[in-house]
Amino acid sequence: MNVSELGEFALIGRIAAWLPDYREDVRAAVGDDVAVLALDPGTCGLATCDIQVEGVHFSRELITPFQLGRRAAAINLSDIAAKGGTPEHFLVSLALPTDLEVSWVEGLYGGLAEEASRHGADIVGGNLSRTDGPIVVDVFLMGKVRVEEVVFRSGARPGDVVLVTGWLGEAAAGLALLRRGPGDLAEEWKHLLEAYLTPTPRVSEGRAVARSGRATSMIDLSDGLSSDVGHICDQSWVGVRLFAERLPISGAVQDFAEVTCREDWALALEGGEDYELCLTVPEGAEEEVAAQVQAQTGTQLTCVGEILKQEAGRWVVLPDGSEVPLRPGGWNHFASDPPPARA
Amino acid sequence: MNVSELGEFALIGRIAAWLPDYREDVRAAVGDDVAVLALDPGTCGLATCDIQVEGVHFSRELITPFQLGRRAAAINLSDIAAKGGTPEHFLVSLALPTDLEVSWVEGLYGGLAEEASRHGADIVGGNLSRTDGPIVVDVFLMGKVRVEEVVFRSGARPGDVVLVTGWLGEAAAGLALLRRGPGDLAEEWKHLLEAYLTPTPRVSEGRAVARSGRATSMIDLSDGLSSDVGHICDQSWVGVRLFAERLPISGAVQDFAEVTCREDWALALEGGEDYELCLTVPEGAEEEVAAQVQAQTGTQLTCVGEILKQEAGRWVVLPDGSEVPLRPGGWNHFASDPPPARA
Repeated sequence: MNVSELGEFALIGRIAAWLPDYREDVRAAVGDDVAVLALDPGTCGLATCDIQVEGVHFSRELITPFQLGRRAAAINLSDIAAKGGTPEHFLVSLALPTDLEVSWVEGLYGGLAEEASRHGADIVGGNLSRTDGPIVVDVFLMGKVRVEEVVFRSGARPGDVVLVTGWLGEAAAGLALLRRGPGDLAEEWKHLLEAYLTPTPRVSEGRAVARSGRATSMIDLSDGLSSDVGHICDQSWVGVRLFAERLPISGAVQDFAEVTCREDWALALEGGEDYELCLTVPEGAEEEVAAQVQAQTGTQLTCVGEILKQEAGRWVVLPDGSEVPLRPGGWNHFASDPPPARA
Repeated sequence: MNVSELGEFALIGRIAAWLPDYREDVRAAVGDDVAVLALDPGTCGLATCDIQVEGVHFSRELITPFQLGRRAAAINLSDIAAKGGTPEHFLVSLALPTDLEVSWVEGLYGGLAEEASRHGADIVGGNLSRTDGPIVVDVFLMGKVRVEEVVFRSGARPGDVVLVTGWLGEAAAGLALLRRGPGDLAEEWKHLLEAYLTPTPRVSEGRAVARSGRATSMIDLSDGLSSDVGHICDQSWVGVRLFAERLPISGAVQDFAEVTCREDWALALEGGEDYELCLTVPEGAEEEVAAQVQAQTGTQLTCVGEILKQEAGRWVVLPDGSEVPLRPGGWNHFASDPPPARA
């Protein structure tokens, strides 16, 4: 069997099974996007990495090296944010064709450094290699979080409310616009391109959620809400019901959906790479947490669903009131026909 | 200018210049193989990564996935060893062709996990992607070291003695044998193949050196002694004199050199990937440190040179007594014609 036939998530499951026991200081490991490691009685270390491969995650024709640098940093910052952590230090591994211009590498580091600085982190090392194949940008980020503030994927309980930060579907709309090619773009749609190319990691929002002490689980939306909420369900042993009409959808995404004959809620539910946070809180705590996050960061939280018992399953209520099974519409890295240039 | 014209080490220099200031907790960063990060008043965190690209660092025809896994882990363990540190947690990023057999990935993780376990470390996460190009195996390793025991590259002083662990030139001989292709191999030469394919990281030896408190600098020999001692000279602002006749050369390497009409000392001086440690200690401390390392690990240390003032330059005394400038004979990742399958 090859890796494509097995699929990404099944392969991750196999890897977890192949590995021997973890050291005693490990709190989360393979199967989570972030390793959580006890450093001392009060602090956990966090470590994550994301590999970006030319032709799979990006195309040099569609993204500048500066944007790619910002994006590669942001994706990792978002993982640390989802644990409620503070990002600290990046390492950057690059595999570069020998004929690549040095100015391209400078642009990449410019974007990496700007995004890192924006969140108080720095770039402290890495590794360079030549390659005869596509460019590879592999970014590794370490951070910290207080033991009592770390948020896992595994704590959601039936009755909890599902919340998301910001707006959904913007990156998916931006990717569609980017792949359509150059052309006149309404001003409000340029923002959609930016949402895809240089997403904003919700680091401050993740910290605010962590400080509230009320979140039972949290994940960042890289693959799409329909997929990522499934990871919370998997690891918390619960079910979920989402409400399509409650998804936070900006005017730009509504317009884009109308013009392109799509359902805006489908873009918001299944579109990946928004890098918003999805979290669960006990019923009744949602307003308090939303008010705290809004006050500390200016970012809105929206209630989009509820956690069910595991045996109740996973559902989404469509705008017409019908309830259908929630299926992952997100990204599988070994799917046979993934869209190009998509992370 | 492209990255090949600039070259690996000049590119690293540029990257260091492009980056903004580091955070206050950074003790070593870009330009060292390992980032050293203050964790608390008594402890430093260590972080390193090494990327292995198919066709550049390895060939699937010449190394099994299990061997590649051991090798990828060992290279990172060696970096932590050179700081006197204790390795703790690995993350593994993979870019895999979709038609790659799952059994290949299983073999790789088997090797990674075995080498990690051998040194008390574990694998706690990573990232998977497909690629349309060569396999990429990028390994990150975190570790720790007590503040008073960390050894940098920057502390060598004129008059210090240069020491190396173990034997030199074995991996270079092994690589030459591997590239010659299959065939009957004398039993003693099989060991040379192993030295190349699955090098032994000197983690215990690095710890023993660190505990001695006497080392003024240390580095692991990845590019070759002639190159790597140059990094100590660069960062310590000193010169060096090595003695070809003092290099520790095993009988197998002597035989291999004789049969293949090479100079054994040239293999030992310029051959890369032995992953032995090279360290400096104040004159007079060499016997004490060597005795401690030998007692604690069974590994011999050999005095191979002396540190000079910077203005005295960098020299090697050949077996005929002539003294010639020491030139890096090692590995540059963007050299125009690097040997295939070489790390």
